[in-house]
Amino acid sequence: MPWISSVDQLAACQKLDMPSLNVYHGSQNDVTGEDVMWADDFYRSVKKTNHLITETNAQTIGWDSKGQYPPFDGQGRLFVYSHIAGGANMVEYWHWHSIHYGQETYWKGVLSHDLEPNRFYGEVSQTAHELKKIGSKLVNLKIKNKTAILYSRDSEFGLSYMPFKDGNAYMEVLRQMHRAAFRQNIGVDFVLAENADFTGYSLLLVPPLYVASDALLTKISDFVKNGGHVIMSVKSGFCDENSVVRHVKAPGPLKEAAGFYYQEFSNIRPIPLRDDPFKVGIDKNKAKDWAEFLIPETAKPLALYDDMFFSKYPAITENRFGKGSFIYEGCLLTDEVQSKIVLNKALEIGLTDKDTHLSYPVVMKYGTNDQGKTIRYYLNYSNVEQSFVSGYANGTDLLTNKQLKKGDSITLKPWDLLIVEE
Amino acid sequence: MPWISSVDQLAACQKLDMPSLNVYHGSQNDVTGEDVMWADDFYRSVKKTNHLITETNAQTIGWDSKGQYPPFDGQGRLFVYSHIAGGANMVEYWHWHSIHYGQETYWKGVLSHDLEPNRFYGEVSQTAHELKKIGSKLVNLKIKNKTAILYSRDSEFGLSYMPFKDGNAYMEVLRQMHRAAFRQNIGVDFVLAENADFTGYSLLLVPPLYVASDALLTKISDFVKNGGHVIMSVKSGFCDENSVVRHVKAPGPLKEAAGFYYQEFSNIRPIPLRDDPFKVGIDKNKAKDWAEFLIPETAKPLALYDDMFFSKYPAITENRFGKGSFIYEGCLLTDEVQSKIVLNKALEIGLTDKDTHLSYPVVMKYGTNDQGKTIRYYLNYSNVEQSFVSGYANGTDLLTNKQLKKGDSITLKPWDLLIVEE
Amino acid sequence: MPWISSVDQLAACQKLDMPSLNVYHGSQNDVTGEDVMWADDFYRSVKKTNHLITETNAQTIGWDSKGQYPPFDGQGRLFVYSHIAGGANMVEYWHWHSIHYGQETYWKGVLSHDLEPNRFYGEVSQTAHELKKIGSKLVNLKIKNKTAILYSRDSEFGLSYMPFKDGNAYMEVLRQMHRAAFRQNIGVDFVLAENADFTGYSLLLVPPLYVASDALLTKISDFVKNGGHVIMSVKSGFCDENSVVRHVKAPGPLKEAAGFYYQEFSNIRPIPLRDDPFKVGIDKNKAKDWAEFLIPETAKPLALYDDMFFSKYPAITENRFGKGSFIYEGCLLTDEVQSKIVLNKALEIGLTDKDTHLSYPVVMKYGTNDQGKTIRYYLNYSNVEQSFVSGYANGTDLLTNKQLKKGDSITLKPWDLLIVEE
Repeated sequence: MPWISSVDQLAACQKLDMPSLNVYHGSQNDVTGEDVMWADDFYRSVKKTNHLITETNAQTIGWDSKGQYPPFDGQGRLFVYSHIAGGANMVEYWHWHSIHYGQETYWKGVLSHDLEPNRFYGEVSQTAHELKKIGSKLVNLKIKNKTAILYSRDSEFGLSYMPFKDGNAYMEVLRQMHRAAFRQNIGVDFVLAENADFTGYSLLLVPPLYVASDALLTKISDFVKNGGHVIMSVKSGFCDENSVVRHVKAPGPLKEAAGFYYQEFSNIRPIPLRDDPFKVGIDKNKAKDWAEFLIPETAKPLALYDDMFFSKYPAITENRFGKGSFIYEGCLLTDEVQSKIVLNKALEIGLTDKDTHLSYPVVMKYGTNDQGKTIRYYLNYSNVEQSFVSGYANGTDLLTNKQLKKGDSITLKPWDLLIVEE
Repeated sequence: MPWISSVDQLAACQKLDMPSLNVYHGSQNDVTGEDVMWADDFYRSVKKTNHLITETNAQTIGWDSKGQYPPFDGQGRLFVYSHIAGGANMVEYWHWHSIHYGQETYWKGVLSHDLEPNRFYGEVSQTAHELKKIGSKLVNLKIKNKTAILYSRDSEFGLSYMPFKDGNAYMEVLRQMHRAAFRQNIGVDFVLAENADFTGYSLLLVPPLYVASDALLTKISDFVKNGGHVIMSVKSGFCDENSVVRHVKAPGPLKEAAGFYYQEFSNIRPIPLRDDPFKVGIDKNKAKDWAEFLIPETAKPLALYDDMFFSKYPAITENRFGKGSFIYEGCLLTDEVQSKIVLNKALEIGLTDKDTHLSYPVVMKYGTNDQGKTIRYYLNYSNVEQSFVSGYANGTDLLTNKQLKKGDSITLKPWDLLIVEE
Repeated sequence: MPWISSVDQLAACQKLDMPSLNVYHGSQNDVTGEDVMWADDFYRSVKKTNHLITETNAQTIGWDSKGQYPPFDGQGRLFVYSHIAGGANMVEYWHWHSIHYGQETYWKGVLSHDLEPNRFYGEVSQTAHELKKIGSKLVNLKIKNKTAILYSRDSEFGLSYMPFKDGNAYMEVLRQMHRAAFRQNIGVDFVLAENADFTGYSLLLVPPLYVASDALLTKISDFVKNGGHVIMSVKSGFCDENSVVRHVKAPGPLKEAAGFYYQEFSNIRPIPLRDDPFKVGIDKNKAKDWAEFLIPETAKPLALYDDMFFSKYPAITENRFGKGSFIYEGCLLTDEVQSKIVLNKALEIGLTDKDTHLSYPVVMKYGTNDQGKTIRYYLNYSNVEQSFVSGYANGTDLLTNKQLKKGDSITLKPWDLLIVEE
């Protein structure tokens, strides 16, 4: 199950040939894509192999009958290909047919209680026949990304003892950073604090790194000095590896790379950022929950608070350090602002291209198959037909065998998809 | 107490000469009438005798002082006659005077703590003097209805283990169906699933009959075949008598009478019904909580979902089967829609008459007294004076001895009432 | 700690030379002044000495990081002088520097975890240097007020067993009455029911005196007869000293002084007072939570309910009795209405003067120092500059040594203050 903090993932994965996941997701209007694919990205990164999906939503789930949401037409099939696009080698359902008594009566299978073919069975059957035909071109996908999210289990635990907001703020920011990349089609891996290695990455996204050794912070600082780019959230560098607050001005060993220090912080109700610097509109243009009173030394402000008191301190800063750059978010932000920060940096350093950029609800994923070919997925995560121009190499639509040329117009029906072999 | 499911009512009533109830109700603006009369209807039906009210609201109730709501002028008297109109032979208060210490300090009596006459005492005294005069014409009222509500204790329990919404959905629908009949002045009895006998009834209202034997479902099906009319709610026929989901397409043995089958269902947020088919207005025109994906075979849709996905399936169907009709509600509905469904069917089959029909807040009840005379009550459940034309036989206003002729205009003051001996 | 009901304050204070308080308050936009000064007023009244503040907010407080609100500039200093204006002889912080590990990691000290000077330290330092200079003129302030609030621990306990609303209604009304006086700059002491002595007071504010002996109620009645003025809230006189409801019409022994009786009461949703008698505006003009059905004998209504049912009974009455007056609130009220009731009576009996009256956010406090001089504080409890004309005797601004004459204009910066020796 993708509750990553309750298990020592590195130790557990060492014993496995291939990790397998039981991953459940929202359905109907609560389908996001992100809630499935972050798990694929995580387990693929930890073990650096492909993986299996051993349980996922069939018709409906629930230990009672209060949250039954059978998928809209196409959603079941979309999830199968999304997992494969994320590195899965198998998708299996819990379970074949619905049970007639007991706790999982309404944790429904591919078949309903009547044991007869139905709408969902029809979709599973279609997908299975497709995979029978083209599966050998999809399996064992190799995925290589330039962006990584740093996951620190110690920080998650440390913040759970001294939370700065209700809920699991650590995971909220981690998931928000993943969502930002996901929705902008910037492929991401995860790097674990325990064996952090940033080799090969250009951009590092850092959720609240509340607990960290000097060594880890120095590694991040050196990554920037040598040309890497960092986007980091609040509370980072505050404590040492024993969750003891450092006796120096925050953010401790990150001070030079970050280009500021702070001595104070405050919980906040939502505060607008002055002049909507990321052009996300009045409802989304907000800092929230937490504000550090950043005092820049070499950093430049990217956003200011529009508030009588807090306006003395920048909300977000960027510091050029060595050959790289360091963006620090001194507050929590809306999804929309986070998404723009990630996109702007990705465009700046060439992780995506203004002319061919696709964004959610079109999800684009790619990798290399056993035959060394690039397999590219276009997935429509919406109720609405999507049209766009193909910005990538010529190739073959694997499901229809039609040829696709760069510059061709592509149309995806609601919850439908396209798989191109380039 | 009218918590009908926690006791085996049939077994308990066998030991009693006459059932007695402790029944409490809302007060001031929370007076509905329905919250009292459904209990009278239920216990009168189970034992098929008259009954006693041994406790009910005097001035105020509560185990502390947070919910003290002494009645508006007239409400106390209105409740006494409402109970008698529902078959009660006695109304007794808990208690005579308010207690000066302990848990029930604020469960106030007819007298306050000062032990002196007061507003409520005055109303009790007036009512008692009236009953001294006319009580012999009111007592032992015999009530015969053409409409019944089927109560299945097993279904209520079964749904409490696998609820499809928060709260006791079974009782909510049962009470909603009772309220629909009550507010349209369609007299109802209750029939218990354990000894279900539909003889003499024209219309059967069925709350979610989640747990039922083949025999009971066949009895309902035969009732329709032989000319009866059914209005049935969701989940009916889903499980057998052991709460095991049936291995066939829902609604199992009801499939032919209902004229549809379904394999899927979904919890839903409120969805409008297309074109407001019951003319209840935009706020009330709603399906909610649960939707079964009905696939009609012989049934006709009475209402459709106004929704991109759910519109494939009708929300409410009606099937002509044998000499009768079968309405099935594939979703939960607002009170207003339920009320219209019941009223339309009652008008169609002659349980009420368009020209003389009275509806809430005027409540009309009747029965036969010991002298074989029809006693008819008109009760005003509102703060507002009510006027209407008498549509019934000539008679005598028992409290004033004035004669009333069919076609006379009747006016009821707020919370006031009229008792006519026809 | 100022949780006054959990300790026998009289017995505890007997053992002490001088009481000391740990008192914490809201910060940033939640600064009110009242939440600190009521505690100073209470402990000064119980022991009739000066007192010490042994703990109060330094930078931020909290057993986790979810409620960190470092003060706006000037708030820390304002609180120090507010305590001294309320009779404190010392203000001490918990604690000197912030702790690096454990439960109070975020219960921050004067210094942050970095142990270096900071914004709050700067303000503490400024204040300490000021006190070094002028402290001998401020210490041992003697304060004499004409208004008292009657605190009955038994009533608070009694109402907690039979609450008439959620929360601690007793303390809510007590605090509301204190706030009314505080915001109108009517200095108040507290009198305890256990040793109630009203000598020297003109005005007595009485929160719900639910539990009281005949002797105490007679003492209040005699206070009025002899020229005193009372403003009293609901439920008073209802029970005897054993929390037993009296066997006579409420309010028992207070009936003659109050000039009304009642037999009934009701919880209420907010009800407007007819014609906004206190001119507080539609949003604030409200009775709430509880209404006694007052039947005046000699009392006159001060406010009526604007409601179909409750309009039969006055909401607030005033009775002239002997040489004094007795205002009774038969319902709970908004802060704004309570404030106007207190102000109107204070103006009527000369506790404040229309021409020189100052009100919140300007807080004016005064007393006599060791040299027999009047020390007068003007405190600005707001983010906005305040200007007004000095209505008091000539004197010296102690912090600047400037002379101030009656009629001079005074301006206070946000969260700033002025101390005048007259």
